[in-house]
Amino acid sequence: MITTPRIGLDVGGTKIEGVALDESGEIVARRVIPSVPGEEGVLTSTAAIVAELATGAGRGVAEFAGVGIGIPGQVDRANGIVRNAYNLGVSSLALGPALAGRVGIPVSLDNDVTAAAIGAAFTMGLDGTVAYLNLGTGLAAGIIVDGAPVRGADGFAGEIGHLPIDPRRRACPCGQCGCLETVASGSALRAYWPAGGDHPGRALGAAVAAGDPDARLALDSLIDGAASAVRVLGFTVNPGAVVIGGGLRLLGSPLYEGIRKTLADQEEASEFIAALRLSERVRVLPEGSPAAAIGAAIAVND
Amino acid sequence: MITTPRIGLDVGGTKIEGVALDESGEIVARRVIPSVPGEEGVLTSTAAIVAELATGAGRGVAEFAGVGIGIPGQVDRANGIVRNAYNLGVSSLALGPALAGRVGIPVSLDNDVTAAAIGAAFTMGLDGTVAYLNLGTGLAAGIIVDGAPVRGADGFAGEIGHLPIDPRRRACPCGQCGCLETVASGSALRAYWPAGGDHPGRALGAAVAAGDPDARLALDSLIDGAASAVRVLGFTVNPGAVVIGGGLRLLGSPLYEGIRKTLADQEEASEFIAALRLSERVRVLPEGSPAAAIGAAIAVND
Repeated sequence: MITTPRIGLDVGGTKIEGVALDESGEIVARRVIPSVPGEEGVLTSTAAIVAELATGAGRGVAEFAGVGIGIPGQVDRANGIVRNAYNLGVSSLALGPALAGRVGIPVSLDNDVTAAAIGAAFTMGLDGTVAYLNLGTGLAAGIIVDGAPVRGADGFAGEIGHLPIDPRRRACPCGQCGCLETVASGSALRAYWPAGGDHPGRALGAAVAAGDPDARLALDSLIDGAASAVRVLGFTVNPGAVVIGGGLRLLGSPLYEGIRKTLADQEEASEFIAALRLSERVRVLPEGSPAAAIGAAIAVND
Repeated sequence: MITTPRIGLDVGGTKIEGVALDESGEIVARRVIPSVPGEEGVLTSTAAIVAELATGAGRGVAEFAGVGIGIPGQVDRANGIVRNAYNLGVSSLALGPALAGRVGIPVSLDNDVTAAAIGAAFTMGLDGTVAYLNLGTGLAAGIIVDGAPVRGADGFAGEIGHLPIDPRRRACPCGQCGCLETVASGSALRAYWPAGGDHPGRALGAAVAAGDPDARLALDSLIDGAASAVRVLGFTVNPGAVVIGGGLRLLGSPLYEGIRKTLADQEEASEFIAALRLSERVRVLPEGSPAAAIGAAIAVND
């Protein structure tokens, strides 16, 4: 898949995860550092972790073909600009050229979910058409066809979280009502099952396990929305595998098995859905996988 | 795009449209013959039009690199088998190998909408990510990325007609309720605006032009469903162009302008939708374009 060593970063709102890959795609260094918000914070911290990763790999930075970055927000890949990365306190930053100026090698940007999709397909050995569904604070997807991501005309491919699909039509910050993200995401959970805590999924999982019927209803709603998202991906690109990732993974098998069972029930009712074989094609990204960092590294200069 | 001469066929329920392309992709012969239902009928008629096209092009059949066929139904491209092509009276037919045996050159099959998408992108000179939305008896889409179709794991990519999205939840023959196809398709029109006539769109267009308020409501429902389909494609693959094709095109500008206006209104309400620029990206396949036949020819042995 790759023939040159690369560095990949997954720049999130709380931490930056980085990997260095060798010529064969093996991870030869891995680091995690806290995110520093703001334009200068993002630049300084990403430059620092690049240097750390090169040192960890026993190479000079110049020995790497480039740095790939997966970052939330709207990514203009051609110009290396990220916009509206609210979690990072960045409204518009030419991160690509600015970081390249500091580290001395090419820097390419991708949306974080697209990067995770590339990394998930690569690390899980999935060929053909692969969909990656990120259930995090928001809901978004990545689509890979024969190893290459579908980015779309403006880098917005996979933004299915803003597809209106819920008849309850909860208001979404995007200006529409009933978006998938208002049902199946961490932010949705905080709104319709406001239990507090450090992570909306952790509190929900504990309450479901303790037999709380309201928590069960909230989980069922989440499962229903996630299954709808899988179906959107199924009908649109007919993936051979749908990989679930994102922070809500910590809900574990009640979430995955719920999604699989919802899809299986729909397959019973419709031969048309059954033909997509979605219930058997749902996979889960392994816990702790640095998929977005790996994917960003793979996508350097592609 | 292509470097060898090919023959392409669009096999439909009432007619077979065929083209012969030369090495540079120019049409050098074009024929239309009536469809003949049943397995032997399909084989005999497709073999006949292949011979006619070769004669029309002034070449022997053996001088063509292959025959590409776009056909409705479920297409197993790897094995050249078409299943459930109800309009043609075919439940399962190994059309690829059987026709290749009769004409002596390779034969490849594609879903008719996928073939039309390939042909539309080629003939309209559209690069990058292109979506093709077919509003015919049913509703389906084709997705092209950098000239290559996204077929999916089983050839079902683009079957968004069976995505449940309508809160009125009309029953769909597929076993679900509220599918896009129950709103924005010729079969939907026949069900919810049963005016009769040879074509559900022709009667509707005439009644709208005559000021019939029920017809106007039916057209608005159709427009709404078609705009939803465009939005599904927008959020999933972020196309740089969305081409509308299919028999309901005969509704003309009231349909297209209605779709554009619906999308423009939604763009006013949501920056998120506005970023996809769908209202300005909707295009219409030129009337009479043999897009599916051309696309099938292009896809020979790809």
